[in-house]
Amino acid sequence: MKFSIQKKDDTTSARAGSLETAHGTITTPVFMPVGTQGTVKTLTPAELNQINTQIILGNTYHLYLRPGHALIEQAGGLQKFSAWHKPILTDSGGYQIFSLAELNKITPDGFHFQSHLDGSYHFFSPEMVIEIQRSLGSDIMMVLDQCVAYPCTYEEALQANTLTIEWAKRCQQAFQTSEAKFGYEQALFAIVQGSTYEKIRQLSAEALVELDLPGYAIGGLSVGESKSAMYEMTQLCTEILPPAKPRYLMGVGKPEDLVTAIGLGIDMFDCVLPTRVGRNGMMFTWNGPLVIKNEQYKADFRPVDESCSCYCCLNFSRAYIRHLFKAQEILGLRLASLHNVYFYLKLMEQARQAILEGNFSQWQNSFFAHYQSLN
Amino acid sequence: MKFSIQKKDDTTSARAGSLETAHGTITTPVFMPVGTQGTVKTLTPAELNQINTQIILGNTYHLYLRPGHALIEQAGGLQKFSAWHKPILTDSGGYQIFSLAELNKITPDGFHFQSHLDGSYHFFSPEMVIEIQRSLGSDIMMVLDQCVAYPCTYEEALQANTLTIEWAKRCQQAFQTSEAKFGYEQALFAIVQGSTYEKIRQLSAEALVELDLPGYAIGGLSVGESKSAMYEMTQLCTEILPPAKPRYLMGVGKPEDLVTAIGLGIDMFDCVLPTRVGRNGMMFTWNGPLVIKNEQYKADFRPVDESCSCYCCLNFSRAYIRHLFKAQEILGLRLASLHNVYFYLKLMEQARQAILEGNFSQWQNSFFAHYQSLN
Repeated sequence: MKFSIQKKDDTTSARAGSLETAHGTITTPVFMPVGTQGTVKTLTPAELNQINTQIILGNTYHLYLRPGHALIEQAGGLQKFSAWHKPILTDSGGYQIFSLAELNKITPDGFHFQSHLDGSYHFFSPEMVIEIQRSLGSDIMMVLDQCVAYPCTYEEALQANTLTIEWAKRCQQAFQTSEAKFGYEQALFAIVQGSTYEKIRQLSAEALVELDLPGYAIGGLSVGESKSAMYEMTQLCTEILPPAKPRYLMGVGKPEDLVTAIGLGIDMFDCVLPTRVGRNGMMFTWNGPLVIKNEQYKADFRPVDESCSCYCCLNFSRAYIRHLFKAQEILGLRLASLHNVYFYLKLMEQARQAILEGNFSQWQNSFFAHYQSLN
Repeated sequence: MKFSIQKKDDTTSARAGSLETAHGTITTPVFMPVGTQGTVKTLTPAELNQINTQIILGNTYHLYLRPGHALIEQAGGLQKFSAWHKPILTDSGGYQIFSLAELNKITPDGFHFQSHLDGSYHFFSPEMVIEIQRSLGSDIMMVLDQCVAYPCTYEEALQANTLTIEWAKRCQQAFQTSEAKFGYEQALFAIVQGSTYEKIRQLSAEALVELDLPGYAIGGLSVGESKSAMYEMTQLCTEILPPAKPRYLMGVGKPEDLVTAIGLGIDMFDCVLPTRVGRNGMMFTWNGPLVIKNEQYKADFRPVDESCSCYCCLNFSRAYIRHLFKAQEILGLRLASLHNVYFYLKLMEQARQAILEGNFSQWQNSFFAHYQSLN
């Protein structure tokens, strides 16, 4: 996997890069829609392609439980199974064990947990998540890490981080001593943890940089801490992480967060937000999100965003989409999801264009001048 | 509206025709997917177009209650509101009042009923359903009719039919004294009723033929009667209805029913079946339906139907679609709906082709030789 930077911004830490994978080249900054269970909720691979989605996420925890990584391996990997033929990144499952499963015991060896589906008992070690991700055949694999709740004590964060660093090494070892199952190269990224403790974030980043992995993620943010703490930790990490390698801010977030974080030097994002809030009827516009079910849109025959060129905005009115939501029609969920993912991708395209043209700060300012956040 | 017949079958009553409407020409036999609330469940107009859907249905009862025909009129009609720019047929609401609403009272003037959504009180007269369908702007409007439950007494069926004939006349009168709201022609079809009583079916058909309307539907079937009774009544009606006008068998049904009914001289069909059973994971193949959630498809990497060219069958395996259903992913509902509607449309295309080529009976026999019904 090769990462190259086309342009660095003069006044911020933003950069426009490209990441070569076995399933194609990704331009950055990039937003990666989340396909938790092998499908970006409500959307087809064809639709994701049409709106120029470059890479999607898969969730190791979910896919391991259902349908099982052995079945996906039998299908020829996650790309073949799900008919998405462009790059895929899979997480390690650590975050889902932390947030979804019943976590019974953490030992130095791994997580003992119970499935959120049926309560069945399972165990994830660093070696196992590499094995699972080999079966999934993702272009980018993630190390097993230990998330901590927010807030947590310094000692808790330190202890979790020590384990996370140890597991990253074991993941790297397992990665280096295993082979890709489908004939193409996979890459392994590490994850910086450390809650909101500067010292631990620094320790974490420095230790992981030592491993000389091809990319680094920042995890454990957007879990309840303040916006300023989130940005502070992000900046602290991006200043330590090697400039020549891609930086991935995990699970963040709102459009305004992405625009800010690009300025802090982040290259890659993923978040369920555009599809999740879409299914609840929140739709993004360049003036901020709107809640399409609201009475005010009842007879509003304008598109959701008048400047948007997605299939939804080119064909349907706010009034019609509101009707679909009121009538609980699945088409409403589809149109809102499609529009929101399109909006996120356009946001990244505009940011990249601004970086390349040397006017990223102006673009950032212009975005914030128009975009009215909901809270 | 002009109906012309390209070819009549020699050995059966099947015919291949074409129906010219303001929104395009429909070739028959035709299957009309049902867009109850202004959307064919889970599908976009673009998808319906891609699979050569010629005409869809809208439900007057549902659209009147939500979002209201006044709003749809304000949007420029149902075509503009829903971004479906090809022909639309709307029913009169009679069947939904019978099956969904709380029907409080039938008077010679119309139906007094309560909404299934909120219990609110409403009244539909023959004149009102014409007014509503004028606002919807459907290419083909249906008269208000009175369905009866099956079984019912001869007297009940006769009484309902007398009212239905009376209302058909009033609908025709209201139609003739009102104008299209959107500058294009709309047509009005009548509905033959009479339960499974030959005498009443005959009375009904003969009385409605007198009105010289541009098309005739056969209603009140597939409501619990035997298959043989359904076919008998259908045949009785098609023998009385004018050969030069299109014949529409309402709400029927399974693929095998359509194949049989085409041979009895039916030109038009609608049914929620392909989308409704699709959402429950039943998918049609030329060998019969399969229940995709079944364990047997767990590691079956073949398409649902190996001879099918729909987006679903060209890209996804039974194993993947089964996974989507098990994981309750909306994409599963979409793919099953798309595939099933595609299957119904192909069935009609093949039937038409066979009629044109003079080998409809052989095609019918070949279909039944391969197709294994589930019950």
